[in-house]
Amino acid sequence: MSRKLSGILNSMHEKNMDALIAVKPENIRYLTGFNPSSFSLLLLKDEPVLFTSKLDIEDASQSSKVPVEELKSLKDIKELLKGKIGIESSMTVETYKKLSNNFKANITDLIEVSRMVKSPDEIKNIKKALEIAEKSFEDVEFSGTENEAAAKLEYNMMVRGSSKPSFETIVASGERSSLPHGTPQVTEIESPVVIDWGAVYNGYASDTTRTIIETDKQEEIFNIVLEANKKAVSAIKPGVKTSEIDKAARDVIEEYGYGEGYIHSTGHGVGLEIHEMPSLSQKDNTTLEKGMIVTIEPGIYLEGEFGVRVEDMVQITNRGNVLNKLSHKLTF
Amino acid sequence: MSRKLSGILNSMHEKNMDALIAVKPENIRYLTGFNPSSFSLLLLKDEPVLFTSKLDIEDASQSSKVPVEELKSLKDIKELLKGKIGIESSMTVETYKKLSNNFKANITDLIEVSRMVKSPDEIKNIKKALEIAEKSFEDVEFSGTENEAAAKLEYNMMVRGSSKPSFETIVASGERSSLPHGTPQVTEIESPVVIDWGAVYNGYASDTTRTIIETDKQEEIFNIVLEANKKAVSAIKPGVKTSEIDKAARDVIEEYGYGEGYIHSTGHGVGLEIHEMPSLSQKDNTTLEKGMIVTIEPGIYLEGEFGVRVEDMVQITNRGNVLNKLSHKLTF
Repeated sequence: MSRKLSGILNSMHEKNMDALIAVKPENIRYLTGFNPSSFSLLLLKDEPVLFTSKLDIEDASQSSKVPVEELKSLKDIKELLKGKIGIESSMTVETYKKLSNNFKANITDLIEVSRMVKSPDEIKNIKKALEIAEKSFEDVEFSGTENEAAAKLEYNMMVRGSSKPSFETIVASGERSSLPHGTPQVTEIESPVVIDWGAVYNGYASDTTRTIIETDKQEEIFNIVLEANKKAVSAIKPGVKTSEIDKAARDVIEEYGYGEGYIHSTGHGVGLEIHEMPSLSQKDNTTLEKGMIVTIEPGIYLEGEFGVRVEDMVQITNRGNVLNKLSHKLTF
Repeated sequence: MSRKLSGILNSMHEKNMDALIAVKPENIRYLTGFNPSSFSLLLLKDEPVLFTSKLDIEDASQSSKVPVEELKSLKDIKELLKGKIGIESSMTVETYKKLSNNFKANITDLIEVSRMVKSPDEIKNIKKALEIAEKSFEDVEFSGTENEAAAKLEYNMMVRGSSKPSFETIVASGERSSLPHGTPQVTEIESPVVIDWGAVYNGYASDTTRTIIETDKQEEIFNIVLEANKKAVSAIKPGVKTSEIDKAARDVIEEYGYGEGYIHSTGHGVGLEIHEMPSLSQKDNTTLEKGMIVTIEPGIYLEGEFGVRVEDMVQITNRGNVLNKLSHKLTF
């Protein structure tokens, strides 16, 4: 049995949990090695079983570290459930309703908490995803239309071995750079241009943002955002709370009078999902530990003018170890 | 108020539902026109309100047909809920738990049932997505590696105005074509090659599969699959049950002795989501209506040898109107 799996089973025993049901594909992949392409269910107990549809059984039998059976109906699973059962917070009410008559379920993030600290193999995959993403970025000229640049960037990543973009690539230029989630349009790129993109390697994601700037005003804002980014990174070490990292970045932006425009959190965990625990936000109080990988991504958004964001990926070692190699300051 | 929205409100009244909560992004987009980039909540009642985070408020205020307010906390929403409340089957238990103390919720697919029959505008968007996908396919030479071909196909679609692939492109060749969900590998393309791909235009998806064949054995299997595809299409007309369409395809494949390998359903609805209602499966008994758009995608999968699938998109008019223009039979 893998260390990850026995760790989860130990935590379950401590909580007197008789079984835990995982249906989130990333959680199943994390614990079994199998990447579901259709609805699958991992029943965690002392002798775990992975249930998949016929569609996935050939693939699962080859890749799962846990014995595989065919999932015929959720009713069959319901029969197997006795005692105190844990379910993921992301389970849908539909699945819950089909499974839940016989037990009182406990909503738990046990698996996702375990996923926060990455193993050496996971770190290797994340670094490789980031390397693919950064090299692919360097081969794009940000001229032409936003969607052409995004298409080129995604093409470069896939040819280099990324299975897909880790999220919908953002290429938002000119006035639209003030939309933190601006999707690429069929319009010529203006300055500044915010590019937020990532690759997926062996299931693991990368996440980076750069803003290519032109004018003095853009540079002025860029320098504040970069200062906030660096303050947050230098506040990172094991034992510090995530909300303190958020505050380090937020304080810089507020100090310059742009606090109103800082409408998102400073970062988040990255791994099998593009957004995972912890959140580096005002409300989150996770204690940073060695082996976590988080983003640091402060931004300033001037509605009707432009926006700037600078995002790095940071591994928690004895300090905050920035994994990105790409320059922060990029100009037209 | 839009026709879609008033239709939903009428259905709610008929069911004595006091309010309905939608959090699924596609359902919110369907009813408001706004495409959420972060957690948003549409509270449907006689005077509907769309709640979004600060991140999305600028965008939502411009695009939503429903008044927009800032979503500060789910607790605030909970205060607003009285009487009989409908929730989507896809809502997570976490969200449900935060909202549900004050009411007994009714799990409902009201919005998704309404989405099955497409408006002329929706059909236009789906046709455009399919046109982008097919033209992009014609510009790819299926030589080199599987992942290069997939990257080229996705690039072509994005440059033509697709916002993203409608799902992870499948390019599965040689022996791996027997995996219905085979993801592209960094390996040279062999015969046959199954390509399953789609574009997204204005939020609407396309979904098509072609298999490029070479040998006589591959052609023999291909002909059976194509016969199954055509039998299913010709069985389509308003008033027929989805299970009958599945049976039409399944019967052909069983007749030739390949029933064991037909491990998936014959098709599904396509629209704002790549898989939506109805399912064209043995268990589903939705009655087909004019304006639905579904896939027809029989396949035969010979484990350890190869697989063949042929998938078209079909609009239900007085009959089954195939929307694809690409040839079925493609050879190396």
